[in-house]
Amino acid sequence: MTLLALTGGVGGAKLALGFAKVLPPEDVVFVVNTGDDFEHLGLHISPDVDTITYTLAEVANPIAGWGRKDETWRFMDALERFGGETWFRLGDADLALHLHRRTLLNAGKSLTAATNEIAGRLGVEHTILPMSDDPVRTRVLTSDGSLAFQHYFVRDRCAPKAVGFEFAGAETASVNPAIPFESVTAIVICPSNPFVSVDPILAVDGMRDALLATGAPIVAVSPIVGGRAIKGPTAKMMRELGVRTTTVAVAEHYAGLVSHFVIDEVDARAEAAVAALGMGTTALQTVMTTLDDRVQLARSVLEFIR
Amino acid sequence: MTLLALTGGVGGAKLALGFAKVLPPEDVVFVVNTGDDFEHLGLHISPDVDTITYTLAEVANPIAGWGRKDETWRFMDALERFGGETWFRLGDADLALHLHRRTLLNAGKSLTAATNEIAGRLGVEHTILPMSDDPVRTRVLTSDGSLAFQHYFVRDRCAPKAVGFEFAGAETASVNPAIPFESVTAIVICPSNPFVSVDPILAVDGMRDALLATGAPIVAVSPIVGGRAIKGPTAKMMRELGVRTTTVAVAEHYAGLVSHFVIDEVDARAEAAVAALGMGTTALQTVMTTLDDRVQLARSVLEFIR
Repeated sequence: MTLLALTGGVGGAKLALGFAKVLPPEDVVFVVNTGDDFEHLGLHISPDVDTITYTLAEVANPIAGWGRKDETWRFMDALERFGGETWFRLGDADLALHLHRRTLLNAGKSLTAATNEIAGRLGVEHTILPMSDDPVRTRVLTSDGSLAFQHYFVRDRCAPKAVGFEFAGAETASVNPAIPFESVTAIVICPSNPFVSVDPILAVDGMRDALLATGAPIVAVSPIVGGRAIKGPTAKMMRELGVRTTTVAVAEHYAGLVSHFVIDEVDARAEAAVAALGMGTTALQTVMTTLDDRVQLARSVLEFIR
Repeated sequence: MTLLALTGGVGGAKLALGFAKVLPPEDVVFVVNTGDDFEHLGLHISPDVDTITYTLAEVANPIAGWGRKDETWRFMDALERFGGETWFRLGDADLALHLHRRTLLNAGKSLTAATNEIAGRLGVEHTILPMSDDPVRTRVLTSDGSLAFQHYFVRDRCAPKAVGFEFAGAETASVNPAIPFESVTAIVICPSNPFVSVDPILAVDGMRDALLATGAPIVAVSPIVGGRAIKGPTAKMMRELGVRTTTVAVAEHYAGLVSHFVIDEVDARAEAAVAALGMGTTALQTVMTTLDDRVQLARSVLEFIR
């Protein structure tokens, strides 16, 4: 089989690690949101790509949900002294990835090639593909105006009220040509934020059609469990957008694309409502606390697909 | 008085610190070699400007002669793992300066403005001026071909045989317009390498004439003591260029520019030969081991000028 797993940051990365533990490198490709990417301090920061990379390399910081474990902050402290921008925290070791990527990109490599080289150096054997090598930049439309994603997410800590989203560049960006659509046998949308992690991937010109054209089942795993998001602003955004914070509302969001929808066991009574959308559905233990949880959910999703 | 002190890295920085200790900020301006500057990992590295900045801020590493004291190397270790270029050592705190300068330059600031802002943040009250805001790049012509300065100096550890020097861009670079030539009452050439620290400054189009036009005494302090360089490749270069490794040979190198030449006490017998070049001369204790040595030499040079 070839599984295509679409993912954003933390939540998606957990399931991605599960897949990486149960599938050999030739059987799964991770397609990652780059709508969060931004230029900062002259560097190209690619938060979701980095979270997946660090997670698969098993050097991710498990508490923060970003960056590396056992990190130090000498650079950041010194930068603060210079009056530099410190709202986006870059650890001393993390910084090496960003500077090295800058070097690779400046040398003319694509984001895909840079990602592949960096992940390889960290011992990652599975393939991580940015959704596109062209810039797509998520903007959060808020009641205070339009904000670049990281300004909304990190600097302003998701405080402004979201009223909509824009994926600047998506309509002219090309789908990453390395994505092996022709051999895909299943597609999983990992439990990432539908609005700012998955929608940017789907917004890349031609992506949605290419996914549907595979004819493969498209299985989404709900990021909403018991009416709440495990992590991040998904539930807050749903409230602000006037959408119910339920797993069914997420399924509705994916209607027309997704053929199967995985809900959490605590939402088992929502199965009928999801089925009414024409989706196959199953209730699984989707909250991933331990590594075992990740592996078990990956196994269960694969069983559901089969 | 307004003292103009021309300086390169370590040796010059020691005397510069002496001047900064005995002269108020309005009485001295440091003009610094930027021929060593280079682009590396997407950053603008300005080794001599940084050495002077760190030295005057009293955060310099006293043993290495570059970088900051109490430095850590997490970034460098991680970069090595990525296969990045690690021959030029960048400490975690040092890196903050380089990234912040990159940000300032990208925002359209001149190297002078960036230097001034960074030095100010580190508590430096004296004025540090790059010799020019335009790029000048020292190249060492060696028996193995032409090398960018840092490749010769750091990567190849000065091993190739030097046969000459080029200061690419010097003939079209403008002298830093912030240098207050009109009020200069004395000029000191600090004990830096004549070939790769001082000559690049003098090579900037119009610099030599502007210095001479001040009519002020131009006092050089010999970097050669007892036939040896205190630090760095000065003596090795002199041998390779077929020049005697003596303080008199340095005085000859500066003939036509320098009016006064300070030699070390151990070279006192060279006074007559220096005087024969038409230069005023004096023998002082020029080896600066302690902070007191730096202050004392600065005082003695100022007395000599008066």
